[in-house]
Amino acid sequence: MTAALQVEGSRFAIVGGASLVGTATAELLLARGAAEVRVLDNFAFAAEDGLAHLRGDPRLRVERCDVRYLPELQRALEGIDGVLHLAALMTISMHQNPWLGIDVNVRGTQNMLEAARVTGARKVVFASSNAVYGYGPQVAGDLVETTPFHAAGASPASALYGASKIIGEQLCRDAVRRHGLRCVTLRYSTVYGERQHGRAANSAFLVEALERIDKGQRPRHVGSATETRHYVYVGDVARANALAFEAPSADVAVNISGPAPAPMLEVLKLLLAAAGSDLEPELVPPPEGGGLLAVGGSFTIDHRQAAEVLGWRPEVDLPEGLRRLVAWHRARSR
Amino acid sequence: MTAALQVEGSRFAIVGGASLVGTATAELLLARGAAEVRVLDNFAFAAEDGLAHLRGDPRLRVERCDVRYLPELQRALEGIDGVLHLAALMTISMHQNPWLGIDVNVRGTQNMLEAARVTGARKVVFASSNAVYGYGPQVAGDLVETTPFHAAGASPASALYGASKIIGEQLCRDAVRRHGLRCVTLRYSTVYGERQHGRAANSAFLVEALERIDKGQRPRHVGSATETRHYVYVGDVARANALAFEAPSADVAVNISGPAPAPMLEVLKLLLAAAGSDLEPELVPPPEGGGLLAVGGSFTIDHRQAAEVLGWRPEVDLPEGLRRLVAWHRARSR
Repeated sequence: MTAALQVEGSRFAIVGGASLVGTATAELLLARGAAEVRVLDNFAFAAEDGLAHLRGDPRLRVERCDVRYLPELQRALEGIDGVLHLAALMTISMHQNPWLGIDVNVRGTQNMLEAARVTGARKVVFASSNAVYGYGPQVAGDLVETTPFHAAGASPASALYGASKIIGEQLCRDAVRRHGLRCVTLRYSTVYGERQHGRAANSAFLVEALERIDKGQRPRHVGSATETRHYVYVGDVARANALAFEAPSADVAVNISGPAPAPMLEVLKLLLAAAGSDLEPELVPPPEGGGLLAVGGSFTIDHRQAAEVLGWRPEVDLPEGLRRLVAWHRARSR
Repeated sequence: MTAALQVEGSRFAIVGGASLVGTATAELLLARGAAEVRVLDNFAFAAEDGLAHLRGDPRLRVERCDVRYLPELQRALEGIDGVLHLAALMTISMHQNPWLGIDVNVRGTQNMLEAARVTGARKVVFASSNAVYGYGPQVAGDLVETTPFHAAGASPASALYGASKIIGEQLCRDAVRRHGLRCVTLRYSTVYGERQHGRAANSAFLVEALERIDKGQRPRHVGSATETRHYVYVGDVARANALAFEAPSADVAVNISGPAPAPMLEVLKLLLAAAGSDLEPELVPPPEGGGLLAVGGSFTIDHRQAAEVLGWRPEVDLPEGLRRLVAWHRARSR
């Protein structure tokens, strides 16, 4: 039996859905004819206005729900065909409260899978992360889906975040085998775009840089000049989520990353160009010990497997995506 | 300030302590003059008679305690100087009940660290595993403490077990930084010896082989002829635990493994020799898909770091350790 779930006419829940990826995905699913998009969030982190652009569509429902409580989630997923699971604490918030981070990332994923099982959801898309490859200078080169997890030299919070995503992925694999649940795991690289938040360190970096540029200050990168990041535009991630529902495959985990990685100084130069600024980026040496986020090496997050499994390729490159980010930021600041 | 905690005159709790490693460690700590050894266990897995050889020593206390409940653990750790944390589900039981496995391995470790903090424990020794290097054919060669975690091709249960140990290790690192707790992580290889249980797949293998030998049947290895295991004798593990308390270091994770790895067929030959049997071992091809325990490669778990950090080296080689295992098994079967 195929695991394909057509977006058109189907009912979706986006768990932890009121933030960056969730709001873009809700918009796309509605545009593609979903019968219902139910955004579930506890609004601990999400901006209250994140769904303002979609209000008025009667197919959108926004419900307060906390993934830590199974009965709440079971009620909230009733009648749903497809579940996109985004709820998670990332490294910064994991550092602030690791106990909460484990409750949300581990117990929350257990609860989601159990709720999806009892409510008869036809497919689950689990949002994982390139954090499953770990952190530190050993994370370098071409990162493919079989690349192992490096924790040596990483901060506890970043390693806990990565390991919690590994647990989530394996819980999905277990649910496939144990209950016949259909799960696709997408390992997002650093997501950026409209409705950017500052909770993930590498996207907070863009928000902070934009704010400095707007104040006429040089945007900064704390780290080495050769360090790279592999950003992916949020609209491309939303499309990957939709394709993961529609693809006939299940029980797979694939990378979702942008067209190409870029050195951090290059990212800042592109951001300055998008903002029409003639400031120069500034390189700041990292704190003693590397700080919360271990300085990574130079790497590419390979998305060829996503093309094979989902027929997905990134479409928006960094210059274009950053122009959209700047446009959103300016419209919002006005 | 040194993190050294002398065994003599100190009070210890062994959490999940009524089984293989815990009973051997309790014996050693008492022999070295500990003022108290409190064995905490919920007896879900441990044999009730595991501590029979120590009963009568007034310094030994055995208490029923479940690591899933923080208040229980906080009461149980009152007045304790050193905590050895062994409570965990391994791959077989993780497969039977992953929800319970995560409760015990993740929440249980969170609870232990919190209880150790509030009760003022001076040092924690966390029992981790070479499962943090993962499973499958990529796990090969010399496994040192910076070797990454491989999950590709592993069963969900084995990957969940390994990832839960990574989470435990990182929670310890976090507790060091956040609360000044002193933690040493020991990554045991496959432990065997007196009071061997059948809960871990690689030690169950020895128990099953012994039972077959006693029935006059050929002992079997399911897998390839070149596959190795790196066993460590339980008495050496107990000594490593004691040294981890006494060592001045904290915030380290080191491998604890036997003198050398051995091919599985060699292990069976040694076991046959120890049992005085002239049977020949039998090689059985693995099930389609590799089964619950992905067949590993040929590897050595390097324990040189433990020599540097703890002054520990394994003393009992496989022929001698298997003779002791056989002697215990025979005495028990009589």
